[in-house]
Amino acid sequence: MKIMIDESFKVARKKNSVGAIVRVADVEFGGEKVVVMAGPCSVESCEQIFAIAKEVKEKGARVLRGGAFKPRTSPYDFQGLGEQGLLWMREAADVYGLLVVTEVLDVGDVTLVSRYADIVQIGSRNMHNVALLREVGRGGKAVLLKRGMAATYKEWLLAAEYILNEGNSRVILCERGIRTFESYTRNTLDLTAVAVMKELTHLPIVVDPSHGTGKRELVCAMSNAAVAAGADGLLIEVHTNPEKSVSDKEQTISTSEFGLLMERLRRVAEAVGREV
Amino acid sequence: MKIMIDESFKVARKKNSVGAIVRVADVEFGGEKVVVMAGPCSVESCEQIFAIAKEVKEKGARVLRGGAFKPRTSPYDFQGLGEQGLLWMREAADVYGLLVVTEVLDVGDVTLVSRYADIVQIGSRNMHNVALLREVGRGGKAVLLKRGMAATYKEWLLAAEYILNEGNSRVILCERGIRTFESYTRNTLDLTAVAVMKELTHLPIVVDPSHGTGKRELVCAMSNAAVAAGADGLLIEVHTNPEKSVSDKEQTISTSEFGLLMERLRRVAEAVGREV
Amino acid sequence: MKIMIDESFKVARKKNSVGAIVRVADVEFGGEKVVVMAGPCSVESCEQIFAIAKEVKEKGARVLRGGAFKPRTSPYDFQGLGEQGLLWMREAADVYGLLVVTEVLDVGDVTLVSRYADIVQIGSRNMHNVALLREVGRGGKAVLLKRGMAATYKEWLLAAEYILNEGNSRVILCERGIRTFESYTRNTLDLTAVAVMKELTHLPIVVDPSHGTGKRELVCAMSNAAVAAGADGLLIEVHTNPEKSVSDKEQTISTSEFGLLMERLRRVAEAVGREV
Amino acid sequence: MKIMIDESFKVARKKNSVGAIVRVADVEFGGEKVVVMAGPCSVESCEQIFAIAKEVKEKGARVLRGGAFKPRTSPYDFQGLGEQGLLWMREAADVYGLLVVTEVLDVGDVTLVSRYADIVQIGSRNMHNVALLREVGRGGKAVLLKRGMAATYKEWLLAAEYILNEGNSRVILCERGIRTFESYTRNTLDLTAVAVMKELTHLPIVVDPSHGTGKRELVCAMSNAAVAAGADGLLIEVHTNPEKSVSDKEQTISTSEFGLLMERLRRVAEAVGREV
Repeated sequence: MKIMIDESFKVARKKNSVGAIVRVADVEFGGEKVVVMAGPCSVESCEQIFAIAKEVKEKGARVLRGGAFKPRTSPYDFQGLGEQGLLWMREAADVYGLLVVTEVLDVGDVTLVSRYADIVQIGSRNMHNVALLREVGRGGKAVLLKRGMAATYKEWLLAAEYILNEGNSRVILCERGIRTFESYTRNTLDLTAVAVMKELTHLPIVVDPSHGTGKRELVCAMSNAAVAAGADGLLIEVHTNPEKSVSDKEQTISTSEFGLLMERLRRVAEAVGREV
Repeated sequence: MKIMIDESFKVARKKNSVGAIVRVADVEFGGEKVVVMAGPCSVESCEQIFAIAKEVKEKGARVLRGGAFKPRTSPYDFQGLGEQGLLWMREAADVYGLLVVTEVLDVGDVTLVSRYADIVQIGSRNMHNVALLREVGRGGKAVLLKRGMAATYKEWLLAAEYILNEGNSRVILCERGIRTFESYTRNTLDLTAVAVMKELTHLPIVVDPSHGTGKRELVCAMSNAAVAAGADGLLIEVHTNPEKSVSDKEQTISTSEFGLLMERLRRVAEAVGREV
Repeated sequence: MKIMIDESFKVARKKNSVGAIVRVADVEFGGEKVVVMAGPCSVESCEQIFAIAKEVKEKGARVLRGGAFKPRTSPYDFQGLGEQGLLWMREAADVYGLLVVTEVLDVGDVTLVSRYADIVQIGSRNMHNVALLREVGRGGKAVLLKRGMAATYKEWLLAAEYILNEGNSRVILCERGIRTFESYTRNTLDLTAVAVMKELTHLPIVVDPSHGTGKRELVCAMSNAAVAAGADGLLIEVHTNPEKSVSDKEQTISTSEFGLLMERLRRVAEAVGREV
Repeated sequence: MKIMIDESFKVARKKNSVGAIVRVADVEFGGEKVVVMAGPCSVESCEQIFAIAKEVKEKGARVLRGGAFKPRTSPYDFQGLGEQGLLWMREAADVYGLLVVTEVLDVGDVTLVSRYADIVQIGSRNMHNVALLREVGRGGKAVLLKRGMAATYKEWLLAAEYILNEGNSRVILCERGIRTFESYTRNTLDLTAVAVMKELTHLPIVVDPSHGTGKRELVCAMSNAAVAAGADGLLIEVHTNPEKSVSDKEQTISTSEFGLLMERLRRVAEAVGREV
């Protein structure tokens, strides 16, 4: 294997070493357990996020996902509830014993988001946003770093290096599909990225099959595949009423579908020596 | 899900129907068992193919793969042993109780290849070769139809339709990676294709993780992932001495690595209700 | 510039040498004149091809294009008129003093097509069809070799090498767009290919802005750009009534638009030291 | 043509309307003159930027380009001279009667960069950085908005809409190549984007053939092609000593090559009814 990332890089896996574990409160990324993060695309209301938090917790999720600051292609699309959304998500997570992962879009919001989140997410559109990478690198929160939609493995790892180089080594990579000629799915989920990252870096890697496919009927199969490929976790869009979701409804599964998914996932995880 | 392929197409899965099973002698594609096809990139000698056939059979393969007519980018690269290669492969398969899958490049060779093979393979470079699709559609052999390197799901299914439309319904689809901007791997293996094909067509689908990744250290993880995603089989390059392989050596695994892969695969298959 | 194609290859441009000229009757590809090839996507009737031939000749085209054997994604789409189409196209070309370029899909049709055509075209879908490349390499006709929809420069040149290696050095490359994530246009026309080929090979290169864009309103601008980039010719879909075209109507321009295009093209050609 | 951008969008070209002109001091983008912006990848020293400014001005450039804040894939690569670089560039531009275009990476630097620049550039890596788009939308400087490396036409236009929606309508689009499977060139320059943008938006569009190709021997041909396609300007990397350039040296042309390029460009511009 051609060495792409020199051992001098902070993200590089040292020869014959095991992967590092990123600890966030009582949750470990990169350990024996596969960590499932689930929740709506956007926080929509207090009732919505509480109802979803309750359901995903019961089914086995450890982390609640939800967007309060939404990166939207059009300025006229719903941009999220902002701090109010963060507050409701934090409360719901606390009530049900979940951690919170949510996206930060702007250097100026890192402090605010960090007040409510356990893990701050850098989305695909910001993977190359060096100012933001540095800012979360100086912060104290774990970072979920999504792969840019046309980022090579090397560019993705070097984006992580920007964070580690500021002193924050709690970075979790997230494969979420890349842009290809195929337009039937929203993106092309690159599960090989999981196996490649296990070779190149000590950082844990999770998979987002919701954005990776853009179609809810594909989410369960690709979750199984991700864990079989060695993923350390999953990030899944779940809603109590997917059809009423204000964003990404086509890729959002219902809470009962999520329950079914978790059951199947447990068997696959065991087959590769992991647990959910 | 947007309907891409009308129910009037012969490849289309009818609503609420199960997938069809493609039978080749005593092997079933699309049934409960995951069919593993293994062997060298090229047939190199009588000794080589016999040694490999023996090993892959012992480890659980049902079909022997091997190239006698090789599609090569350069006219100056090794083009395969031709009929001599077919003959040795047939003998090795018969001795060890395996079926034979091998590629046909040319309309003029379909009869010859069909004399030796149980399954004729249409490679990626020929997925759009309508004359060849029609010719194997008129033949009596099952066809393994690889996805073109930049073919959409729809184009791939319509290539299969050319075969079915000539009267041959024994077509097995094979995902082998698509061409994207990522150059670290040889191709980008699109495992979502497996789940998509289960929605759109009744044809079985197998995965080639060797061409799909181009790197032997990724083959085992991606085999597991393929089966977890629902693949009906695998096509894997195996050699008794990968480093001496005359072609594709970087993506060829050793027979002992193949043994290990099969052990792990069994557990994943069981986890999704299949057997190897 | 990294050397991709060794000087030992027959397609390679020798250091400091000029490009070769491919002569077909009285037309030269790679000389001072930019050669315009124009005509319908498909030959539809005797009247149609005569009417179009007359118009494109008057406006300055030197070669008549038209499909008699059509490569179609679906087996149920119009597949062309076959030999009848070839015959009408030949007659129309002869009446108006044009040459004929038309596609051949199948090794078995090379002799037939060569009887009517001055230049046989290998389409994108067949660029990797080694049997067909070899067959036209053994034939006596000039070959227009379209780039595969996901073929690298190197693969394209090596496809040409298959033809030259059989003894036929009259090969004209044709850039016709590649497949990318952008779906607004049918393909992404890669005009840099023109400048790259001028560095790497002595073969002439022409551009197909009709397939390259898939939209008629873009054809004129991209024709100008192609010639400014150094293209030796153009291949343009023209119809007396584009809206009634049986295939590719969205990318076909009218004969009057073609007249306008040719006027503008003359000025651009002169600006880069060429003539139309 | 399928309408992608509704007439209600601020970027949309109204039916049958001409394009808008973006005025920056005495320079007009979108008018009869093709605006050439030239200069080094990075400002390296006072001497360097003065020497280059003098040369590019003499050859016909109207705007001086140069990076002071550099977006780099690796945190260990040269990140630019910062404000010192801006100061030298401003002085050089003033001495030679040029305008200044330079990139801003961070919301926090917009005020600083705006103090020195006439046009602030949003680079490819930041095209989706909504916070930065909004910030330059609230500022008073014209904005050069580069296309993201895998951004569709629609996403690019909607990024511009974020800027216009904040009140700043002086936006100039810049095509700089997209990411495809072809790795011989750094990117695939999509000149069709020029003709498409002339249909969809009133905003002017310029082309960066340096990043678009990544190879200096291709810059002149692609500059000609860009103008022939209808581009309103060019952004070209020029250095007095390209081989000593601290960044992007493979795609940087010398000042004498730039002089030659300008001569040729004048003839192409005239051929399409423009001037340089």
